[in-house]
Amino acid sequence: MIKAYAAHEPQGKLQAFEYDPGALQPHEVEIDVQFCGICHSDLSVIDNEWGMTQYPVVAGHEVVGTISQIGDHVKDLKVGQTVGLGWHAGYCNVCAPCHAGDHNLCAASQATIIGHHGGFADKVRAEANSVVPIPQGIDLESAGPLFCGGVTVFNPLVQFNIQPTDKVAVIGIGGLGHMALQFLNAWGCEVTAFTSSDDKKQEAMEMGAHHTLNSRDAKAIEAAAGRFDLLISTVNVKLDWNLYLGTLKPRGRLHFVGATLEPLDINVFALIMAQRTISGSPVGSPATISKMLEFAQRHDIKPVIEKFSFDRINEAIDRLRSGKAHYRIVLHR
Amino acid sequence: MIKAYAAHEPQGKLQAFEYDPGALQPHEVEIDVQFCGICHSDLSVIDNEWGMTQYPVVAGHEVVGTISQIGDHVKDLKVGQTVGLGWHAGYCNVCAPCHAGDHNLCAASQATIIGHHGGFADKVRAEANSVVPIPQGIDLESAGPLFCGGVTVFNPLVQFNIQPTDKVAVIGIGGLGHMALQFLNAWGCEVTAFTSSDDKKQEAMEMGAHHTLNSRDAKAIEAAAGRFDLLISTVNVKLDWNLYLGTLKPRGRLHFVGATLEPLDINVFALIMAQRTISGSPVGSPATISKMLEFAQRHDIKPVIEKFSFDRINEAIDRLRSGKAHYRIVLHR
Repeated sequence: MIKAYAAHEPQGKLQAFEYDPGALQPHEVEIDVQFCGICHSDLSVIDNEWGMTQYPVVAGHEVVGTISQIGDHVKDLKVGQTVGLGWHAGYCNVCAPCHAGDHNLCAASQATIIGHHGGFADKVRAEANSVVPIPQGIDLESAGPLFCGGVTVFNPLVQFNIQPTDKVAVIGIGGLGHMALQFLNAWGCEVTAFTSSDDKKQEAMEMGAHHTLNSRDAKAIEAAAGRFDLLISTVNVKLDWNLYLGTLKPRGRLHFVGATLEPLDINVFALIMAQRTISGSPVGSPATISKMLEFAQRHDIKPVIEKFSFDRINEAIDRLRSGKAHYRIVLHR
Repeated sequence: MIKAYAAHEPQGKLQAFEYDPGALQPHEVEIDVQFCGICHSDLSVIDNEWGMTQYPVVAGHEVVGTISQIGDHVKDLKVGQTVGLGWHAGYCNVCAPCHAGDHNLCAASQATIIGHHGGFADKVRAEANSVVPIPQGIDLESAGPLFCGGVTVFNPLVQFNIQPTDKVAVIGIGGLGHMALQFLNAWGCEVTAFTSSDDKKQEAMEMGAHHTLNSRDAKAIEAAAGRFDLLISTVNVKLDWNLYLGTLKPRGRLHFVGATLEPLDINVFALIMAQRTISGSPVGSPATISKMLEFAQRHDIKPVIEKFSFDRINEAIDRLRSGKAHYRIVLHR
């Protein structure tokens, strides 16, 4: 039996929940969960915001742990190995995106916490090829958030061939944004942080920003016209996107990793006249996660975390809901 | 004196208009206009739709002719050479886009028909580096529309590294779209034409489409889910863009060369989940125009045109305004 914490309804308190995972499948591994980050999308699934939740739901998809069992056909992972598990716990492996290495875009992928029990538990199972070994030298305690939030902001740098000579701005310096600043600084870029919080300005500079701009100061944003090659938006609130488009150079890109429910109301002339682009992306593929971990290790990039023991999980979730979490929350044994 | 046709007010009839162009500048050339296409943006400027028109306005920016005079510093063009002139009649040559070969994105570029007299005339002047020699074998009579509409639909294939293995759809089979079908077919792509006009289906197939889809049949569009790598929209009417986004594969691109005044109301989740992109671009650089002309010559790509002599210019403009022009209109001597 696996001992987990489950929600039984939207906004429900998590309760102790045991389940029998059955026989380990040939391509699966079982992980003893050491640490598990809490991500905003855990709350979205617990609350059934996307209408896809299956209750009882065991959330948790920023898992760090050690492999306790491997299926008969698993060749590349070993019992005792330290690994991480993110948003995906399996892929179809046969579709065009999977064949192209874009497992993160597989339409038949298995989400770790939708129709599958996740990492708010003592153990979690996943297909072996969704599980990524953690290199020596990575701080395990804070590594969990790299597997979802971290790779989400790292992935665009790989996908869009971002160059160290590029000028990049991050909109929203929270759980995702504070990792983006670190990655971009290490990538060699000129880094600007857009934040509405005066408190975060100094922290943003310490995390790798060279400049900050107030995300609610329209005049300051107008004055930054034509400045950036790339804007990465991590926010889930509606901003004046056409104002932000104006801060892009010709050929510049406004990229969304955070989603607003409201449509984007984009002025098409602003795209046409300067050959600008708008795009979005989800988490990364296993290959990109692996690349990110190596890069994070070499550049000593770590999420800033608050720690809660697993038995304080409801307190931790309330803290995240309050919006006061200091960047990212991680559960530990 | 240059003998031109000018409008003196929005929707005004064009009237004979003579002007003294002054001394030829060192980097300019003068072109004897043989043919000049009429583009929708000529109407937009005549009607001051963009609020930038300077009256009297001499429109016309799809010029084919021969060089009659060259400035003292012009080294690469000769009197008597057959050339074309498109949307731009000059560039700053010193900004970052110009330095990068993206003259078409130069913010200080000189539009041929805004604050400058265009090709509805016996002669037109332009900076030499905005004038592109026409290779042997190009049909001169129909070449004018290549310099604006043609390069506008050709340019994205170059900019976004479109591959012959890609599946591409063109939305709107009019002046721009009918050239896009020809370019894409010659590029080696699988080509689909979205059109709301039953009459145009057969013509679209003849011009290079392998398939057609009704642009107003939501069910047919839904059934094409995940099919295309690239959609090129040439229309200036509002469509259900999120429906069209659904026809893109993961990593697919919805690209605008036609502009609606209404904002694009894009669902950001549709971008994020499948790493999709929305973009826009204007005309091409001189280097891209040159590349296009060589490609058009090799593949015998020609705009389908209706011809009017210059003295029937008002009739030609009324024909274009009526929406009945059979793809493109060209004025001839």
